[in-house]
Amino acid sequence: MNALHFSRVVIVGVGLIGGSLALSLKRAGVVGTVVGVGRTAASLEKAVRLGVIDEAATSLADAARGASLIVLCAPVAQNFALLHALEPHLEPGTIVTDAGSTKSDVIMAAKTALGDKVAQFVPAHPIAGRELNGVEAALNDLYLGKKVVLCPLQENSRTDVAAVRAMWESAGADCHVMSAVQHDAVFASVSHLPHVLAYALVAQVANAEDGPLKLDFAGGGFRDFTRIAASSPEMWRDICVANKDALLREIDTYEAVLGYLKTQIKAGDGDALERVFKRASDTRLKWGAARANALHNVEP
Amino acid sequence: MNALHFSRVVIVGVGLIGGSLALSLKRAGVVGTVVGVGRTAASLEKAVRLGVIDEAATSLADAARGASLIVLCAPVAQNFALLHALEPHLEPGTIVTDAGSTKSDVIMAAKTALGDKVAQFVPAHPIAGRELNGVEAALNDLYLGKKVVLCPLQENSRTDVAAVRAMWESAGADCHVMSAVQHDAVFASVSHLPHVLAYALVAQVANAEDGPLKLDFAGGGFRDFTRIAASSPEMWRDICVANKDALLREIDTYEAVLGYLKTQIKAGDGDALERVFKRASDTRLKWGAARANALHNVEP
Repeated sequence: MNALHFSRVVIVGVGLIGGSLALSLKRAGVVGTVVGVGRTAASLEKAVRLGVIDEAATSLADAARGASLIVLCAPVAQNFALLHALEPHLEPGTIVTDAGSTKSDVIMAAKTALGDKVAQFVPAHPIAGRELNGVEAALNDLYLGKKVVLCPLQENSRTDVAAVRAMWESAGADCHVMSAVQHDAVFASVSHLPHVLAYALVAQVANAEDGPLKLDFAGGGFRDFTRIAASSPEMWRDICVANKDALLREIDTYEAVLGYLKTQIKAGDGDALERVFKRASDTRLKWGAARANALHNVEP
Repeated sequence: MNALHFSRVVIVGVGLIGGSLALSLKRAGVVGTVVGVGRTAASLEKAVRLGVIDEAATSLADAARGASLIVLCAPVAQNFALLHALEPHLEPGTIVTDAGSTKSDVIMAAKTALGDKVAQFVPAHPIAGRELNGVEAALNDLYLGKKVVLCPLQENSRTDVAAVRAMWESAGADCHVMSAVQHDAVFASVSHLPHVLAYALVAQVANAEDGPLKLDFAGGGFRDFTRIAASSPEMWRDICVANKDALLREIDTYEAVLGYLKTQIKAGDGDALERVFKRASDTRLKWGAARANALHNVEP
C-alpha cells in the first residue's frame, strides 16, 4: 500500500471534475472505495457502470460515515446547503475539500455551516476543464500537469492541508498556495471576466437585427474568442454571483481600458492605439511561448 | 488555356494574403506572369525564390504596364497613396481590386485617387488568415472554402465584377455581394470589435500590479479568448481607424450589454444573468455546429 492512502473518498457531484478526480485517484492507487453522491440515482448508476465510482449514495449522511475525505464538486451555489446537511454527520477524522472556481464564498459558507468543524475544510481549486460536461467526459489524466490552488484556512491543521496537497499531486497536479482574496482576484481577471465578455459579445450579435448575416461571416477570430461563451450558463451564473466583488472591480477596470481605446478610435489616434495593441500583443506572444514550453515539459 | 486567364497579375504587398493569392492562381492555372510589388527588394527576392511571384518590381508604374489585374494586398492605410501613384499609369483594360478588411474607406480613397478610373476598381475582402504572417506563410489553398465579400461600385462594369469573382472562385472561394456599409457593419461586429476587446483584456492584465501572477494562472479559456490579441498591432491600428464609425457603434452597444450584465452582477440577479448567458450559449453552440458542418462539406 502507498504511504498515501484514503480508504473511503466521497465525491459530491460526479461530473467532469468529480469523475476525473475519482479516476485519477484510482489510477494512482491511493484510494480504497470511492462513493459518489448526486441528485439523481440514474446518473450515479451510470458512474458506477463506467467504473468511475464504486458505490452510489443519495444521502450525504450515509456517505459521510467513515469517510477519510469528502470532495465537493457540485456547482458552487450548492456548497452552503451541502455543508449544512453534512455538518451533523461529519466525523472528527474526515477531511473536507472542494473543487470550486471561487474561494471567498465557499469559505464564508463553510464557516457558517460547519462552525468549529470548519477546521476540517481545506479550500481548493483545480484549474482544469474540457469542452464536454458530465461523467462520460471524465478522464483519469485530466489533472496531469495542471495547477491546483490551495487556500488553507488558519484553522486547518498542517496535516490536513498536506493530505489534500498530496491527493492532488497523486493526480499529477502542481499545487500552489494563495489567499482566498488573491485567488478570487486572479481568476476574476483571467477567467471570470473573459467569460462575461465573451457571453456579452455573442448576446450582442444574437440580438442584432442583422445577427444571422453577421454570424454567417464570422470567422476564426470570432470562433476562438467566443468558445467560452458556449460554457454552462448555470455554472457561470453561480460564479459571477459568488465572486461578485472581485469581478465587479475587474469589470470597472475593463470599462476604463475599453473607454480609453474608444476615445483614441474616435480621435483617429493610430499611434495611441498601436501602443496599447503592441503592449497586449507582446504580452500575449510571450505568454503563449512560455505556456507552450511549460506544457511541453509536462508531456509524458 | 482556361476560359479564365489573366496574362499579367500584379500583387501589391506580397505577404500572407497576396502571396497565397498568387500561389492559388498559379495552382488553378489561370495566370500567365505574376508580378510582385513591395517596399523592399529583399522580401520580393524571397518571394521570387519561393516561386510565389515570377517577377519583382519596386515601381508600381513599371508593374502596371500591360497588367490585366492589379490586386492591392498592402495594409489598408496605404491604399490611398498606392492608388494615387497608380492612377497616371493605369491602362484602360486593367482591373484593380483589393483584399482589405474594410471597404468604405478604400472606396473613398479610390474615388479620390482614381477619379473616373474608379470604374476599374472592384472592392473585395477575402475572409481568410493564419496565425503567421509574411510570404513564407503563403499557402496555395488558403482560400479554399473561404468566403470572399465583393462590394461592387455602381461605376463597375458587369464584366470586371465577374472577372474578379471568377478569380476568387478559381482560388476555391465562395463569393458574396454586399454593400460596403453592410460589410463594414458586419465585420465591425464579428471581427474588429472582438480584436479590440481581446487587446483590451490583455492590456489590462499586463498593466495590473499582480499581472505576472495572473498570467501564471491563466488557462485554456484565456488562451482562446486572447489568441487574436497576438495579431499585428499595425494592421489592427489601421483597421480601427479605417472602420471607425461602424466600430464605434459596435463599441457603444457592447458597453450597454456589459453595463447591463454588471448591473445584474451587482444586484446578484442570477436569473437575469443566466438568461443572457443562455441566449449567448445557445447561439454559440448552434453557430459552432453549423460551421463544423459547412467546413466538413468543403473538405476535399
